[in-house]
Amino acid sequence: MTRLNPDRLFPADPATRTVARALYDAVRDLPLVCPHGHTDPAWWGTDPAFADAAQLFVTPDHYVVRMLVSQGVTFEELGIGPGAEKDARKVWRSFAERYHLFLATPSRLWIDHALQEVLGIVEPLGGDTADAIFDQIGDKLAQPEYRPRALYDRFGIEVIATTDSALDDLAHHRAAAAEWHGRVVPTYRPDAVVDPDFEGFTDNLATLADLTGCDTGSWEGYLDAHRVRRAEFARHGATATDHGHPTARTADLSPEDAAALYATVRQGKATPAEAETFRAQTLTEMARMSCEDGLVMQLHAGSRRNHSDTVFRRYGRDRGFDIPTPTNWVDALHPLLNAVGMDPRLRLILFTLDESVYARELAPLAGAYPSLRLGPPWWFHDSFEGMRRFREAVTETAGFWNTAGFNDDTRALMSIPARHDVARRCDCAYLADLVTTHRLTEAQAHQVAPLLARDLAKEAYNL
Amino acid sequence: MTRLNPDRLFPADPATRTVARALYDAVRDLPLVCPHGHTDPAWWGTDPAFADAAQLFVTPDHYVVRMLVSQGVTFEELGIGPGAEKDARKVWRSFAERYHLFLATPSRLWIDHALQEVLGIVEPLGGDTADAIFDQIGDKLAQPEYRPRALYDRFGIEVIATTDSALDDLAHHRAAAAEWHGRVVPTYRPDAVVDPDFEGFTDNLATLADLTGCDTGSWEGYLDAHRVRRAEFARHGATATDHGHPTARTADLSPEDAAALYATVRQGKATPAEAETFRAQTLTEMARMSCEDGLVMQLHAGSRRNHSDTVFRRYGRDRGFDIPTPTNWVDALHPLLNAVGMDPRLRLILFTLDESVYARELAPLAGAYPSLRLGPPWWFHDSFEGMRRFREAVTETAGFWNTAGFNDDTRALMSIPARHDVARRCDCAYLADLVTTHRLTEAQAHQVAPLLARDLAKEAYNL
Amino acid sequence: MTRLNPDRLFPADPATRTVARALYDAVRDLPLVCPHGHTDPAWWGTDPAFADAAQLFVTPDHYVVRMLVSQGVTFEELGIGPGAEKDARKVWRSFAERYHLFLATPSRLWIDHALQEVLGIVEPLGGDTADAIFDQIGDKLAQPEYRPRALYDRFGIEVIATTDSALDDLAHHRAAAAEWHGRVVPTYRPDAVVDPDFEGFTDNLATLADLTGCDTGSWEGYLDAHRVRRAEFARHGATATDHGHPTARTADLSPEDAAALYATVRQGKATPAEAETFRAQTLTEMARMSCEDGLVMQLHAGSRRNHSDTVFRRYGRDRGFDIPTPTNWVDALHPLLNAVGMDPRLRLILFTLDESVYARELAPLAGAYPSLRLGPPWWFHDSFEGMRRFREAVTETAGFWNTAGFNDDTRALMSIPARHDVARRCDCAYLADLVTTHRLTEAQAHQVAPLLARDLAKEAYNL
Repeated sequence: MTRLNPDRLFPADPATRTVARALYDAVRDLPLVCPHGHTDPAWWGTDPAFADAAQLFVTPDHYVVRMLVSQGVTFEELGIGPGAEKDARKVWRSFAERYHLFLATPSRLWIDHALQEVLGIVEPLGGDTADAIFDQIGDKLAQPEYRPRALYDRFGIEVIATTDSALDDLAHHRAAAAEWHGRVVPTYRPDAVVDPDFEGFTDNLATLADLTGCDTGSWEGYLDAHRVRRAEFARHGATATDHGHPTARTADLSPEDAAALYATVRQGKATPAEAETFRAQTLTEMARMSCEDGLVMQLHAGSRRNHSDTVFRRYGRDRGFDIPTPTNWVDALHPLLNAVGMDPRLRLILFTLDESVYARELAPLAGAYPSLRLGPPWWFHDSFEGMRRFREAVTETAGFWNTAGFNDDTRALMSIPARHDVARRCDCAYLADLVTTHRLTEAQAHQVAPLLARDLAKEAYNL
Repeated sequence: MTRLNPDRLFPADPATRTVARALYDAVRDLPLVCPHGHTDPAWWGTDPAFADAAQLFVTPDHYVVRMLVSQGVTFEELGIGPGAEKDARKVWRSFAERYHLFLATPSRLWIDHALQEVLGIVEPLGGDTADAIFDQIGDKLAQPEYRPRALYDRFGIEVIATTDSALDDLAHHRAAAAEWHGRVVPTYRPDAVVDPDFEGFTDNLATLADLTGCDTGSWEGYLDAHRVRRAEFARHGATATDHGHPTARTADLSPEDAAALYATVRQGKATPAEAETFRAQTLTEMARMSCEDGLVMQLHAGSRRNHSDTVFRRYGRDRGFDIPTPTNWVDALHPLLNAVGMDPRLRLILFTLDESVYARELAPLAGAYPSLRLGPPWWFHDSFEGMRRFREAVTETAGFWNTAGFNDDTRALMSIPARHDVARRCDCAYLADLVTTHRLTEAQAHQVAPLLARDLAKEAYNL
Repeated sequence: MTRLNPDRLFPADPATRTVARALYDAVRDLPLVCPHGHTDPAWWGTDPAFADAAQLFVTPDHYVVRMLVSQGVTFEELGIGPGAEKDARKVWRSFAERYHLFLATPSRLWIDHALQEVLGIVEPLGGDTADAIFDQIGDKLAQPEYRPRALYDRFGIEVIATTDSALDDLAHHRAAAAEWHGRVVPTYRPDAVVDPDFEGFTDNLATLADLTGCDTGSWEGYLDAHRVRRAEFARHGATATDHGHPTARTADLSPEDAAALYATVRQGKATPAEAETFRAQTLTEMARMSCEDGLVMQLHAGSRRNHSDTVFRRYGRDRGFDIPTPTNWVDALHPLLNAVGMDPRLRLILFTLDESVYARELAPLAGAYPSLRLGPPWWFHDSFEGMRRFREAVTETAGFWNTAGFNDDTRALMSIPARHDVARRCDCAYLADLVTTHRLTEAQAHQVAPLLARDLAKEAYNL
């Protein structure tokens, strides 16, 4: 492995680099606040050992899978789908032999960091070292220090949120809380019961009724069922909800129209346009509930999921074939913001995959509405250049305090320190550039750096 | 206050900074040409004293108001709306205590500059110094050197344009011209009589008839009324018109269709689509009149005004809730450009809030049509990063001569020197980068710098 | 002429510049691979002398013409249209006197390079030197060393592709191959027989039938005719096809629907929507044929051709009035990619004029589908800033191996070395920045640099 350089991601200009180093030294060891992500609750509830290098770094990582597929590797060779390669070592080799494909990508930065800093691997990864490193990783994973709860402590995590179906029983969260000191909180993610296109939507409504004792046969009962579940999540420590929609569209129908739309949707008879309106309406309802119960609302919008029908049919979801689309936020959010956007009790954090909206739409919206905060660069943009573009596009209009700090958004536990480290380095590099060009004093930059590294995330999510 | 650093906004690289300094030294003291802005004509016509620090820097500044509101300050605390705080000192304190919110924003750069360079304040602004600075500012404002006409001279303004309703009587311009040596020229802004959605549109047409003696009951009479008013503006020194439209759409209907549309619009019966087509048609008519009378035409397009209905109803216009939208220029301008875009008598200056069109649409259009020039980065983009993105996106396709120099576009008199200074610094920083990377020689950069600082604006606006 | 600086386009930071120089030194003299461009096949087939400086640098160059027209020069003065200036020296003067308009544009960089490096001109070009330089160029062009085949050798071209109508007889390619050692290959460009809006479309179908012996009266016969012609191009060395469409839209109709649509289109009765669907359908058919015959497919989408009707009617095509438009790739490519996007035999190279899609759409698509590669920055974006934006937006998501190297895409033979040199400098500057910020090691950068300079282009186009 290429040794990680201690100055990585810092500006080339020597004077600016000196400032960046000093800023980074002051924030590098701050605890990690992880208010949004996709770690498996079972890790925290049962603290299992990880299986092997392929399961840790290749097969479940859609960033890694898609890049290898884009260069001609089959899903099967990566352990996915009918006829999948069952030998984890072979899967790992398919990856290691092509590790050059990841040069200059965030995936390589994260994996290099995990291999070196977390697992103590020092050889460069490649076809020739694949087997030896596979074995070294296997040895580590068998040790108790590499189980999830030990890593939580070693990584200096202060709090971590998972993302959980509205129908989840939260048993792993209860187990973790009962047995262990770590702070793992759920996040209310109601796709299964707000998206008419979700698999089993109608059955899910029945399950929701069972779980809550509410009559999901009526619009009012349906909304009550959400209230009951949100309260249950909050009792388990949740401070936030999360909503992943194809567009940012919101609606604010009259109660009668909403009830009528729900009746149609509930019977599985919604047209695509009605399904979209229903999703839009639920966002506004969720915002109203946030005003009542104080849960922070997150909206992740703008991904066209499963672009390849072939890949979806054969290999399923989350295989790297979700592609961003142009996303209009100004018109889309208007109904919701008109309803509750000026309410001081609402906090709504926005995430986009369309960078052209940073300066044009999101910064002006967040720089006006008291309810809005901007989430950090998301998914494809969670990278050096992506973070730079975000800060450069957003700061002059929205300032620092209308941003919501960093979150790692990851399913890959080993990558958590790497991701926070990249974000802290990038933010310090950006601040250092402001200092050298006299847009901030060094003292001001030292005030802002810990906000970006930790404090804004804690504050934005009420953690 | 943080002392302004003499090297602010210059590139970090020492060699490049040296070039930037030399370029800036050559243009920093050039007179200020202000061909577009929103200073109050009454300032020039009656030369009043400004009231207090809050009226000068807070309440009327939508950049400042929106940022404070976005962080939970109420409009009332800022002196706006029913129940507004009447104590200017308290309003000022609400701002001063939160001055950190503006770190790394252009507003802070402008206000720091005005406080230090114009008003001679040296303490850092904050909650603890709010009262003392409020008093110091008050003392200054009582002195004759801080009245508008004195500031015009002190700032080194060569000419300044105001923006005036087509229905304005231009009395303040006459008074200024009669009593004083400053050059203050009006700009013909006909929103009130070209936008069917403007408050009192029908009444405005009647007023237009009264003012001009033309029969605004007919399409031809309506066009004649514009001609009469434009000539009156020109007699008062106007060299330009200005058009602020939600989109850049233009139309070129047959005279019969235009007359029929006008008949509908005049009676207040236009659908939203007809209103849009009418605005589109008037742009083409204005372009035709520019060919006749030589007034330079400006188009500012792409803002969704008053995004929050709540804020608009309670607090009115220009409160920081105007949000940019995606703007298509290529299709939108096609009718107008096809009608008169190749006419050597037309000059049309374009302003966008959608930066994605710089390289894709505006630079290719301005780099082809002889009638087009590109206005400087507008509104949210009138900033360090905004100016850099503009030059980097536009120059390679449109060159320097298809841009229209800088204009400050401000309602805030105190900020005028700061804004020109920022633009001059940014342009010199950009040119210095071209020199260090050998895309220009230093001699060429010295030829271009004064064009960007003053000459292109004078030439583009026929001043 | 301003002497070209040996460090031009390299980063300002001294340490980064040193890395860039070393990278560039290793690739500057690699042979030129030119897999896409618009040189005239007659140059290669008949090796004529070029006429004069105006014909070489002004009249046929739409970059040069549009800039001069945008600043008030008439087409006639540039030797174009009815009443065109016939004196080449006068045309040259009109250009030379206004050479400052091109400061900081790629055109100036290319022309400076051609004048100095290819033609040995050392005086600065301007009004005062116009005549002398016109004569010097004329003297050179009369010498055999300045004929196309000699320049091919002198430039170090390894292979060059032309772009040829599907109806072309390829006689020049046969002549070149028979008489000369250079490798000049055709590219199958079927606009004339796939675009119902193309001049003479119906007649072209008849010509296609004559050329191939296929019955273009039926959909199946029409597809067979393409197959025959593609095979003929391949026999002449072609490895690729090229498709220039107003949008990236593709379709995948049933054979019956496609046949019915073809029947409508063939009779010249297609509506604009049907014409668009037909173009969309042919793209998918071409992709299927690429799976069969191995020709690499190129798609250049997103230009609104001939924006000014006036200019088009009077002066014709390719006069600098083609303007980019917003281009959606995610939805547009879905039908084609669903049909054959996962087929390992397909290679499809994408070119856009809408930079906002780089990070949002194209990099995610190319970083997933094995069939896709990203072409280099095209047309308006074939420039220092354009190349930087491309690499910064694309690399983190798609890596290096999903890009297709450089191509010069030019009609201007003299500019070929300049264009490759700019690309090599820009890529080395980008790589050097990755090295200094420790995103690549210097050794890794040295592995990547020759890929970007030559090898990826050879590999992507099967050359």
